[in-house]
Amino acid sequence: MTENDETTDDIVEATYCALCECGYAGLTMQDIADRSETSKSALHYHYDTKHDLLLAFLDHLYDSFEERFATDPDADPLDRLAAVVAEALDEADDEERRDLRTAMLEIRAQAPYDDAFRDHLDKFDEYIAAEVREIVADGVEAGVFRDDTDPEALAEFVVTVFDGAHVRSISTGRLLSATREHLAEYVERDLLADADREVEFS
Amino acid sequence: MTENDETTDDIVEATYCALCECGYAGLTMQDIADRSETSKSALHYHYDTKHDLLLAFLDHLYDSFEERFATDPDADPLDRLAAVVAEALDEADDEERRDLRTAMLEIRAQAPYDDAFRDHLDKFDEYIAAEVREIVADGVEAGVFRDDTDPEALAEFVVTVFDGAHVRSISTGRLLSATREHLAEYVERDLLADADREVEFS
Repeated sequence: MTENDETTDDIVEATYCALCECGYAGLTMQDIADRSETSKSALHYHYDTKHDLLLAFLDHLYDSFEERFATDPDADPLDRLAAVVAEALDEADDEERRDLRTAMLEIRAQAPYDDAFRDHLDKFDEYIAAEVREIVADGVEAGVFRDDTDPEALAEFVVTVFDGAHVRSISTGRLLSATREHLAEYVERDLLADADREVEFS
Repeated sequence: MTENDETTDDIVEATYCALCECGYAGLTMQDIADRSETSKSALHYHYDTKHDLLLAFLDHLYDSFEERFATDPDADPLDRLAAVVAEALDEADDEERRDLRTAMLEIRAQAPYDDAFRDHLDKFDEYIAAEVREIVADGVEAGVFRDDTDPEALAEFVVTVFDGAHVRSISTGRLLSATREHLAEYVERDLLADADREVEFS
């Protein structure tokens, strides 16, 4: 690991902590420097503005996001779908993860005013949609899912459900488990070719 | 209409315009006063803080929301559901309505840090959920909807889908029509008792 990599990792980690603890709205470069080995002036050397730094942070987050959501193409399509649902709708019992989701919703709410945020955030939804689309298409081909399923439309719908569950969970504290259960019922009824197979997303 | 009512209406209208034009994040009392017949000092006489004013604004918005979403209890349950979907997921071609939704998402993203916002916003989701729950229960009773439907769970799911469609529409510009179409398919397959009846939400 080069010194530069170490600095980047340190800044990304500090941004993560600062977002969790302070939220996005009032976040300053000083809040990030306070949680970092890097001084505020060195932060400014690496990133001109808070905005640049946050975009770099979103890039790093996206890399870990890809790792978390990738599924094994050879596994059973229903198991792969269950893994995606479990990852997307886990209750995030640990406080830090909840706090990050909260800060991400703030950034999302700024996306209409900020094309760079918008482009970066779009990639997250697009990645999950592509993953679900592929899983569903594989499942249809394997005869596990109904052959009248439109993978594209279903994937878009699933991502919409994920986003809705998150926004309700963050802003009004609804449990994600209700959405998991309803999605499981939906998949059992509408997606599975075998009417007797049971689905549980936990 | 008393003078007081007129002032309230003026302030609510000005807040609406200011939110649409300026968004929530940087909104000031001056922005609102600039769009109002009421001076900034008079604004402060009526509302101590911007926060108080926004809560009053949310109350007014909620009243119009109730009017928009109420359906005729004697109408066909599927038509009532279609009316709710059409109202919740209309494309909001007029710019002002889109801008208001954008500002509302910003307020929503602040809800985790602000119990009063959270309580106020919860009422909106709760109102739609209650309306859908009642429509579905009436439809089950009338034999229009399948009798193995859980009105409570379905209503929560529908509100989650509405919220997800909005957040995607606002933050990444997805069309709401895709969600309307998928919901129609879902209702046709999973909710209607009569397998031959077709559903279109437009």
